[in-house]
Amino acid sequence: GFAGDAAARYSSTLGVAAVTYGAGAFNMVNAVAGAYAEKSPVVVISGAPGTTEGNAGLLLHHQGRTLDTQFQVFKEITVAQARLDDPAKAPAEIARVLGAARALSRPVYLEIPRNMVNAEVEPVGDDPAWPVDRDALAACADEVLAAMRSAKSPVLMVCVEVRRYGLEAKAAELAQRLGVPVVTTFMGRGLLADAPTPPLGTYIGVAGDAEITRLVEESDGLFLLGAILSDTNFAVSQRKIDLRKTIHAFDRAVTLGYHTYADIPLDGLVDALLERLPPSDRTTRGKEPHAYPTGLQADGEPIAPMDIARAVNDRVRAGQEPLLIAADMGDCLFTAMDMIDAGLMAPGYYAGMGFGVPAGIGAQCVSGGKRILTVVGDGAFQMTGWELGNCRRLGIDPIVILFNNASWEMLRTFQPESAFNDLDDW
Amino acid sequence: GFAGDAAARYSSTLGVAAVTYGAGAFNMVNAVAGAYAEKSPVVVISGAPGTTEGNAGLLLHHQGRTLDTQFQVFKEITVAQARLDDPAKAPAEIARVLGAARALSRPVYLEIPRNMVNAEVEPVGDDPAWPVDRDALAACADEVLAAMRSAKSPVLMVCVEVRRYGLEAKAAELAQRLGVPVVTTFMGRGLLADAPTPPLGTYIGVAGDAEITRLVEESDGLFLLGAILSDTNFAVSQRKIDLRKTIHAFDRAVTLGYHTYADIPLDGLVDALLERLPPSDRTTRGKEPHAYPTGLQADGEPIAPMDIARAVNDRVRAGQEPLLIAADMGDCLFTAMDMIDAGLMAPGYYAGMGFGVPAGIGAQCVSGGKRILTVVGDGAFQMTGWELGNCRRLGIDPIVILFNNASWEMLRTFQPESAFNDLDDW
Amino acid sequence: GFAGDAAARYSSTLGVAAVTYGAGAFNMVNAVAGAYAEKSPVVVISGAPGTTEGNAGLLLHHQGRTLDTQFQVFKEITVAQARLDDPAKAPAEIARVLGAARALSRPVYLEIPRNMVNAEVEPVGDDPAWPVDRDALAACADEVLAAMRSAKSPVLMVCVEVRRYGLEAKAAELAQRLGVPVVTTFMGRGLLADAPTPPLGTYIGVAGDAEITRLVEESDGLFLLGAILSDTNFAVSQRKIDLRKTIHAFDRAVTLGYHTYADIPLDGLVDALLERLPPSDRTTRGKEPHAYPTGLQADGEPIAPMDIARAVNDRVRAGQEPLLIAADMGDCLFTAMDMIDAGLMAPGYYAGMGFGVPAGIGAQCVSGGKRILTVVGDGAFQMTGWELGNCRRLGIDPIVILFNNASWEMLRTFQPESAFNDLDDW
Amino acid sequence: GFAGDAAARYSSTLGVAAVTYGAGAFNMVNAVAGAYAEKSPVVVISGAPGTTEGNAGLLLHHQGRTLDTQFQVFKEITVAQARLDDPAKAPAEIARVLGAARALSRPVYLEIPRNMVNAEVEPVGDDPAWPVDRDALAACADEVLAAMRSAKSPVLMVCVEVRRYGLEAKAAELAQRLGVPVVTTFMGRGLLADAPTPPLGTYIGVAGDAEITRLVEESDGLFLLGAILSDTNFAVSQRKIDLRKTIHAFDRAVTLGYHTYADIPLDGLVDALLERLPPSDRTTRGKEPHAYPTGLQADGEPIAPMDIARAVNDRVRAGQEPLLIAADMGDCLFTAMDMIDAGLMAPGYYAGMGFGVPAGIGAQCVSGGKRILTVVGDGAFQMTGWELGNCRRLGIDPIVILFNNASWEMLRTFQPESAFNDLDDW
Ligand SMILES: Cc1ncc(C[n+]2csc(CCOP(=O)(O)OP(=O)(O)O)c2C)c(N)n1
Ligand SMILES: Cc1ncc(C[n+]2csc(CCOP(=O)(O)OP(=O)(O)O)c2C)c(N)n1
Ligand SMILES: Cc1ncc(C[n+]2csc(CCOP(=O)(O)OP(=O)(O)O)c2C)c(N)n1
Ligand SMILES: Cc1ncc(C[n+]2csc(CCOP(=O)(O)OP(=O)(O)O)c2C)c(N)n1
Repeated sequence: GFAGDAAARYSSTLGVAAVTYGAGAFNMVNAVAGAYAEKSPVVVISGAPGTTEGNAGLLLHHQGRTLDTQFQVFKEITVAQARLDDPAKAPAEIARVLGAARALSRPVYLEIPRNMVNAEVEPVGDDPAWPVDRDALAACADEVLAAMRSAKSPVLMVCVEVRRYGLEAKAAELAQRLGVPVVTTFMGRGLLADAPTPPLGTYIGVAGDAEITRLVEESDGLFLLGAILSDTNFAVSQRKIDLRKTIHAFDRAVTLGYHTYADIPLDGLVDALLERLPPSDRTTRGKEPHAYPTGLQADGEPIAPMDIARAVNDRVRAGQEPLLIAADMGDCLFTAMDMIDAGLMAPGYYAGMGFGVPAGIGAQCVSGGKRILTVVGDGAFQMTGWELGNCRRLGIDPIVILFNNASWEMLRTFQPESAFNDLDDW
Repeated sequence: GFAGDAAARYSSTLGVAAVTYGAGAFNMVNAVAGAYAEKSPVVVISGAPGTTEGNAGLLLHHQGRTLDTQFQVFKEITVAQARLDDPAKAPAEIARVLGAARALSRPVYLEIPRNMVNAEVEPVGDDPAWPVDRDALAACADEVLAAMRSAKSPVLMVCVEVRRYGLEAKAAELAQRLGVPVVTTFMGRGLLADAPTPPLGTYIGVAGDAEITRLVEESDGLFLLGAILSDTNFAVSQRKIDLRKTIHAFDRAVTLGYHTYADIPLDGLVDALLERLPPSDRTTRGKEPHAYPTGLQADGEPIAPMDIARAVNDRVRAGQEPLLIAADMGDCLFTAMDMIDAGLMAPGYYAGMGFGVPAGIGAQCVSGGKRILTVVGDGAFQMTGWELGNCRRLGIDPIVILFNNASWEMLRTFQPESAFNDLDDW
Repeated sequence: GFAGDAAARYSSTLGVAAVTYGAGAFNMVNAVAGAYAEKSPVVVISGAPGTTEGNAGLLLHHQGRTLDTQFQVFKEITVAQARLDDPAKAPAEIARVLGAARALSRPVYLEIPRNMVNAEVEPVGDDPAWPVDRDALAACADEVLAAMRSAKSPVLMVCVEVRRYGLEAKAAELAQRLGVPVVTTFMGRGLLADAPTPPLGTYIGVAGDAEITRLVEESDGLFLLGAILSDTNFAVSQRKIDLRKTIHAFDRAVTLGYHTYADIPLDGLVDALLERLPPSDRTTRGKEPHAYPTGLQADGEPIAPMDIARAVNDRVRAGQEPLLIAADMGDCLFTAMDMIDAGLMAPGYYAGMGFGVPAGIGAQCVSGGKRILTVVGDGAFQMTGWELGNCRRLGIDPIVILFNNASWEMLRTFQPESAFNDLDDW
Repeated sequence: GFAGDAAARYSSTLGVAAVTYGAGAFNMVNAVAGAYAEKSPVVVISGAPGTTEGNAGLLLHHQGRTLDTQFQVFKEITVAQARLDDPAKAPAEIARVLGAARALSRPVYLEIPRNMVNAEVEPVGDDPAWPVDRDALAACADEVLAAMRSAKSPVLMVCVEVRRYGLEAKAAELAQRLGVPVVTTFMGRGLLADAPTPPLGTYIGVAGDAEITRLVEESDGLFLLGAILSDTNFAVSQRKIDLRKTIHAFDRAVTLGYHTYADIPLDGLVDALLERLPPSDRTTRGKEPHAYPTGLQADGEPIAPMDIARAVNDRVRAGQEPLLIAADMGDCLFTAMDMIDAGLMAPGYYAGMGFGVPAGIGAQCVSGGKRILTVVGDGAFQMTGWELGNCRRLGIDPIVILFNNASWEMLRTFQPESAFNDLDDW
């Protein structure tokens, strides 16, 4: 679940999680609910009893209330579902379901009855089109642009959908052409890390960099690109940002102040905005990017979370590539906010524990060899840390930092039972 | 989840599992689905956002699709639900929900909005009555008795509902008065272990004791008392038992052959049967109880699962009390079938991994000090074994046998990270 | 609606009602709900907007809340539904839906989008089989027979399902072979009217023939064949019949006392009973059939309902064939109970007004030329009496007696606006 | 149903329709579906079996599939529902339901179990507030005004919501202050008939007054105030109006071009617009109101529909007050479009037959003595024309013109069976 989610998040494409019917699938409900909340397009593929087994008189093991219970449960936490019980209809059904996952960037659910596993089907065609009204798109882009242009201190704030729809480069280009500073939301931390001019930093209200907080909260043209309006993203602001004065593009809708354009896909909007703006080579920018803490001292004090961030950052300053970070819920996530990274994946909104380790594994599986740095609390590690056992088999070697705040001996607590050397990087 | 389930199973009363809204609750879906399948009356109590928070404009963390998603999901896997948002109605709602849990012996769900936690309410009254038709009960008991009496080789097979409704002593007495041999189903393994004449053994078809298998499969009066007609309980039979020829009491219905009496509570039925039968001091019984394997040899061979069963049994033969066993899914469960026990709890039907360790903990919490023997595979241990970390805090000391079939060094693999000595019993 | 219902009732086969989407269909909800309650297998066929029209932006006339509203409403009052939007699936869907109508004898719903009307489809195959367990059927028939044989005063009471499943002749034969008297329920009035030995009469408790009431209420073997356990059928009994002591076959289930055989089709049961009984030529029967009131006097008194019954009965005594009667709800229905008839159709359970006139029309359409006598109150006539306007077009000439209790001048109130001569029969 | 609907439409307040459970209520489904479609806030009050009767074992007459069926059906065609089974909760429930009827101007459903009829309850409080965002309202009003002002040929087109929310006078004032011509939609025919400057006429595309059609279709600032975007209102336009270029206020939302303001109540919007506009005494208006046909000739020709319109109009020209017209579906409705009227009520969108006569009756019941002119086709008259029988009892005397196109003798076909003199007005 988490691994499929992370794979989707990492590569801005569909993730896949295949599970056993019943106990296996129900075990994944939490991960999928989190993927729903955080817009990760995980394709859950579950087996199911054969189309005739249900009638045999005996109850089947792994079954909940009825054989339909699992389908109903996943209906609540996915945006499209299909039971593939008719080979003739399966290709169209699959296309419909995958199309919804891609268009809405949310999890979907496919159920394959046992006796259908080997059914031959026609190839699955293209996703069915999600119609877009070109005129509406144009009107919307025009109004967004006018609002940004007339603002005295416009700011572009990017969040998860930018990655989900593979728009990081374009969003960077957009900021460049608009000549506006970029920040990320809490959830969007790590976005655009590879951009020519990376974001100034992450907005986390009073808990964060005062400069960024001021910039965002005083902006009269705050463009929330693909941003989840969650309490974790925004309730942190003490002088609550008046969301009703922002431009907010999310979930195929764009809201400016009090009105909303429906059915505006994010990629279409970004493209339309770019078409309306000439390239720019402006580089000046009044503000310096956020300064990360560095300089870990060997001082005999117990290690504090910030020390870990320093250690990670020192390593980067010393010339090593920053790593993609997968964080779990807890202190570790807040510490990760202080690390220099090549991107961050975390359950910043859904806030479910157990995400970190499997996410690191899932991401490294699709990273083309790049290592992932996983940070996780001891509480969360107990939930899914055991998944490290799969690393050897998968041939991957994520680095795992376990925040064991029982003993606060974090750096020494790297304790993957399996034998990959997490430590030797340090 | 699993712990609340096990507590309910152990003490034949309601178990309770309290969780955080969202990530916490969704994490428990699997355990509750299993409790539903295996008839354990767990009361899930979840927090929820305050009744007005939902309108604040920002999405709340931990939320799935909508704030109602969690309620809908639990509706699929519990038999009664209530959102306690009105203090005036709360007592009646609670009584209704707990009454359903008790009457149906299945999980139920209560949701308490944050701002209602301190609401004052009237005391909760008695469970609302689930009406019973005395005449129907009498007619049913008469027919069951006639069928048992006219059978040449009647057998009483007990299963989980007997424990759920606290009927073990009565069921033993019933067998005594009827003068029929008792066996248990796979799921019912461990039932009536304390009875004056314990069951002959457990029916597991061709995989089990041939004598028991023959006895059951040739019976012309097989009375399935509280038995789940699951594939794990019955599909094991090679000469499939003709279920349509049995007497089957389950889920408040009694089926004899092709007809069914509805709304017959199991306790009412057992009482009605006892009333119709004079006490008996018959003790003769043609069959010997099942012989468990004993006599572990120190032979230098790798340890096989059966060796573990022998070790456990030897310990009992050596004079120690048999223990209540909590087993997880996997080889360990089948091995546990060969252990002398004071009862067994296992996900024998739902077959979900992860049950063992938390179940052992939950059971010991309500066992009045009796230790529990937990057997669990390495796969399953990775799912929930970390719960052992709670033992010290809870002041309990379950024994855990981990079947690490990667290395097959099971006896040496007792490796609870925390420091209780699981081994010193051996 | 009512006409399709009546056609179904008359000919013991499916009735059809085709309607306009929206206003037309919603107008028929009452008739279909009545057909559901009284087990008439009406096939409702509704048009619907074309599969693409729904997206055109404009709301469509005749539409309720959404284009799906009508489907949802009919789902509540029919036993199977299909939207025929895929020519490839249509034949299987139609077979499924019609099969359910036939097996369950309840209304079903088919919706045909406008643009599918001319779609070419494969021929519709046979109804999918509704499986029957022969052994269960045998066990059930044996128990029913044993109960009837051991009763001192068995009685067979027939009701609507006997007609719905075309079992009138077989039911008469069954009574003959069993040697038991036959009565009908209120709803079943008119059944077996053509049998060699017609029913003794209709059970309507204290309101009816005292002899029949005594016979039924004192029976210790009352076999309710296809009987709706409605308040109108049974609440009339002052010494309420103890339904729990009867044998009751209805809705594919057979209940004897407190237990129930599921999935027993009525025709299968009757066949199984007949197989178990030798033919009989017994004709003796202790009781005389019910004596209908006759002898209308021209006495200058205002005409009372009973006078109408007398007039109708006198006509039969004078040598005319009794007619099939279609009655509406109201006094007229109770009066019809006193008329000699060749069968009666009435909303005896659902009790909805407006049934009479269209039912008479629908029935005559499929009666092969036999005239129908319709009795209807003035209240009900105002609801659907206007349907008489269709008679000339349809070439039929039902007789309509309007009970105008405003003026109590009933015999003179035959006032079909159209010009068929209802009166000249008298 | 229809009468309650019409009463609501007439007096811009809630209408009430009280019915018998079951047959009575199901008979009203069509009328309520029509009221839903056409935004009439009818309160359906249905009886229901007592809260305990459902368990008595016998099926109750009038019942559909289950005792819950009726509730489910009405859930599909109303915007709020309540079953008043708890006297303590009833006042709040009633307030909630009536509040929804008023806020949304759609039908609602209340069910009163038999044994609750005499329950004492606290007085029902005020409607719960439907929150309005003042800032959003202001932003919306500003944008609407700017759009109307910048248009070269703005037009105000009024439709049913204007009447439903009692805004006729304000809408007239708004047009006056804006200095824009007013037309009505097809459904809105009759609106603002009492205004100082009544509408120019009704837009019915090619079927209507060419001047009006041109005015509307060429407008670059068409403000659809409370307008149902139905096919009957707009599909008539040959050069289809580009709805995406209009300003459209309906169903608590305002759409300008491609974007939408949510939760904007119509009355709030009109008030906000009026606040922004100074009073005006402009009276000049370039266009003459629509010229109605007059001058019926006694020419021996068969009477054509237009002759009836002429007759009605001649009567007004001769000095009589124009009447409120209630029209049914059919030719009569189109003819009514040519009559001078003091308002028109008709099922112009839902297009269900049977509305006319009961609507006329319902409206006159609340009209304070004003007579209503009902026009109805013979087809529709047969559906509900019988309701005229209630007139004497109700002490009302609507005029009914029956379009009997079988004989085309319309003027002579005024044939209310009851004895009020419809004709003597002519
Ligand atoms: C599945 C789940 N259960 C419970 C919570 C509530 N919760 C949030 S943070 C937290 C503690 C996390 O502890 P740990 O993983 O040790 O991280 P730390 O904060 O100590 O670094 C808990 C229990 C949650 N977010 N997710
Ligand atoms: C939650 C869940 N996921 C998957 C399965 C399918 N399954 C059944 S047994 C088993 C292997 C169990 O391995 P382990 O716990 O090591 O026990 P062993 O059989 O090796 O003793 C699996 C994966 C399951 N029953 N439950
Ligand atoms: C559709 C419907 N509405 C209301 C009722 C309640 N109801 C039952 S009998 C009856 C009066 C029937 O009057 P009429 O048709 O004149 O017959 P009468 O009893 O006067 O002969 C009414 C209103 C009903 N059964 N069906
Ligand atoms: C309840 C209902 N059924 C069917 C229709 C379809 N329909 C629309 S107009 C019409 C004919 C109306 O005939 P009549 O009332 O005689 O009016 P006319 O047009 O002849 O004046 C029909 C059947 C409808 N609108 N409503």
